[in-house]
Amino acid sequence: MNVDGKHYRTVWLEGAVVRMIDQVKIPHRFEIIDLPDCHATARAIQTMIVRGAPAIGAAGAYGMAQAALAASPEAWRAEVEAAAAELAATRPTAQDLFDAIARVREALAGAPDVETARARAVDAAETLADKSVADCEEIGRLGADLIPDGARVLTHCNAGWLATVDWGTAIAPIYKAARAGKRVFVYADETRPRCQGARLTAWELCGEGIPHVIIADNAAGYFMAAGEIDLVIVGADRVARNGDVANKIGTYEKAVLAHRHRIPFYVAVPATTIDFDCPTGAGIPIEERDPSEVLSMLGLGEDGAIRTIRIAPEASRARNPAFDVTPADLVTGLITPKGVIAPRDLARNEAALRS
Amino acid sequence: MNVDGKHYRTVWLEGAVVRMIDQVKIPHRFEIIDLPDCHATARAIQTMIVRGAPAIGAAGAYGMAQAALAASPEAWRAEVEAAAAELAATRPTAQDLFDAIARVREALAGAPDVETARARAVDAAETLADKSVADCEEIGRLGADLIPDGARVLTHCNAGWLATVDWGTAIAPIYKAARAGKRVFVYADETRPRCQGARLTAWELCGEGIPHVIIADNAAGYFMAAGEIDLVIVGADRVARNGDVANKIGTYEKAVLAHRHRIPFYVAVPATTIDFDCPTGAGIPIEERDPSEVLSMLGLGEDGAIRTIRIAPEASRARNPAFDVTPADLVTGLITPKGVIAPRDLARNEAALRS
Repeated sequence: MNVDGKHYRTVWLEGAVVRMIDQVKIPHRFEIIDLPDCHATARAIQTMIVRGAPAIGAAGAYGMAQAALAASPEAWRAEVEAAAAELAATRPTAQDLFDAIARVREALAGAPDVETARARAVDAAETLADKSVADCEEIGRLGADLIPDGARVLTHCNAGWLATVDWGTAIAPIYKAARAGKRVFVYADETRPRCQGARLTAWELCGEGIPHVIIADNAAGYFMAAGEIDLVIVGADRVARNGDVANKIGTYEKAVLAHRHRIPFYVAVPATTIDFDCPTGAGIPIEERDPSEVLSMLGLGEDGAIRTIRIAPEASRARNPAFDVTPADLVTGLITPKGVIAPRDLARNEAALRS
Repeated sequence: MNVDGKHYRTVWLEGAVVRMIDQVKIPHRFEIIDLPDCHATARAIQTMIVRGAPAIGAAGAYGMAQAALAASPEAWRAEVEAAAAELAATRPTAQDLFDAIARVREALAGAPDVETARARAVDAAETLADKSVADCEEIGRLGADLIPDGARVLTHCNAGWLATVDWGTAIAPIYKAARAGKRVFVYADETRPRCQGARLTAWELCGEGIPHVIIADNAAGYFMAAGEIDLVIVGADRVARNGDVANKIGTYEKAVLAHRHRIPFYVAVPATTIDFDCPTGAGIPIEERDPSEVLSMLGLGEDGAIRTIRIAPEASRARNPAFDVTPADLVTGLITPKGVIAPRDLARNEAALRS
C-alpha cells in the first residue's frame, strides 16, 4: 500500500538483501531495515520487526533464498537445511512460516547444483510473495461484499497490509469496501501487550484515510453491548482442519462476546495459514513470549525518543501467551481467496484452497 | 495495610488536611499527598490520585468535612452545599461518592451553627471511614470461605486496599484466606487503559507476599479455557437494585467468559456501593474519560523518571469508556458485609444491608 504517496510492500528481496519495514518503530518512525543474510532475517522474525502470519511466511521464504544465494557449491544442501531449521525455530505458531519454508525446500529438491538452487530459491520466494499479494487482494474483494455501507467493524491486532506482503487479510475487505465508496468505520482493539492495533492498524487506517477509533481491549464488549459493532473481522496465525482458529491473544475473548451479541465474526486467511495436517486447535503450539512485553510498554516519549517504560512493580512476574484458540463454532465464516467458507466446510474445500 | 512495615490507610484526615497515598505514582513511588482544602480533594478524586469506589467515598466525606471546617459562620450552609456539588461533579459512576456526600449532609442537617456543623462533619466522615474499614474486613472474612486452599483467583482492576480505606473489597478475601494459611495464587488483569491491575493490585500483592502473575486483559479467556482459573472476584463502582454491576471497563468481558467456562464470578461490595434507587444497570451513568488514557501509557523510564509515552499515531483518536455493566445473571454472588447474596436476592436484603 502507499506510504506518503509511494507504494511499499512489507518485505522484499533486493539482490541478496532482504529489506523490510521496521514494524517495531511504527507509528513513530517509518524506517526500512536491511538484512544481509538469513541469520539476520531469522532474528528480524523473532524480534517481530516483521510479524503477521503471511508477512512472516514471505520473510521466511526470502530467508531461504538468502541461504541458497550464500551457500557454497560443496555443501549447499546442508547449508540450506540449516537455514530452514533456523528460520523454523524463530516462532512456533504462524503456519505460513512452515508452509513457506516447505515450498522453497520443495523447489530445491531436484536442483543439480548450487547455481540452479539459487535461481530456484529466489524464484520460489518471489512467486510465493506475489501469490500472497494476489490472494490478499482477492480476500479483500470477496470480503468487501460482507461489509454493508455504513458498517462499524471491530478488528483485533493487525491483520492489515503490514501483516502480509500487501493488502492485508482482515483489513483488505475494509480497504476494498472503502475504495468502492462504502462508508466504513473501524474500532481497533489496541491489542496488548504489543499494541499492534493501536500502533500498526491505526497507522494503516490513517494512511488510507479510513475513520477509526482505538479502544482498550477491555472495551470491545462494552461497544458490542451498546450496539455499536456490526461485524468483527480478524486474521489468523493458523487455522486447523476443523476450523479452529489460532490468532493473537484476546481473539477468543472477542469471539465469545460476538457470539453472545449475535455479531458476525469472520476470520480472513489465505490458504497458507490453513494447516490441513492439524486436526483441531488443540494441536496448535501456542508461543509464550517474554513477560517483559506485559510488564513494559514501548512508545514515543515527550522528548521525541522511542522509549520503553516499566508499568508493573519490579517484583511482579507476568505470563504472556501470544495467541489463543477460537473454536470453530464461534466463527461465522473464513474469508479465503476461494470464497467465504463455513469452518465446518473447510476440509472439503482443501483441494480448491491448495490450488 | 502495611507498607514497609508501617500501617497506612489509603486516605485520612489530619486537622483540616486530607492526606492520601498518591496512586498515580504507585508502584514507582510511594508518596503521601496533602490536600489543604475541599477543592484540592475534589481535584484529587477527578485526577484519580485516589480511586476505587469506597476510597472515593471516604475522600468525598473528608472533602465535605474540609468544607465545613473552612466555612464561614454566616454562610456555612451554602458553602458546604457548594462543596457537595463540586465533589459530586468529579466522577459520575461510583455510588459510594454520592452516598458519602449524602451522609455528611444528613449529619449537618440539624446543626444550629458552624461550630456544631464542623464537629458533626468531621465525626460523620471519620465514622464513615471506620465503617468502611470494618465492612471491608468483614467482606474479607466472609469471602475467604469461598476460596479453597490452592485456589487460582482472577481479578480485574484494583479492588484491593488502595481502592478502599483499608483491606479492599475483591482482594480482602484473598488477604484473609492467605493469612489463614491457605495457598492462593492471583492472576491480575493489567486492566488497560490505566493499568490499575499491573500497577496497584500487583504492588499490593507484592506487599502482602501473595504469589501472582500479571496478564494482559486479552489473556483472561486463554487462562480460563486452559483450566487455570478457579474463581473470579472483582469489586464494583455501583450495583443496581436488580444486581447489575457497573465496574471497571472489561469486567463484563471477563464475566461473559467466566459464565462460558462455568467459573464462579463474585462481586465484592460494601452496602455503600449499592444504589437501591437505581432499578437496573441501564440507569447507571458510565463515565467516558480522556482518550489520552488509551493513546498513551504512564510508567517508569529506564532513567528512573516517571514518563508518559504515546503508543498510537498522532492522527488517531480513541474512545475511553471507564466502566461497563455486567448483567446480574452473570454474577454468581455479591460478597457483602452481611453475607454472600445472590443478585436476585439483593432487593429483599435492603434493610439488612443498610443497617
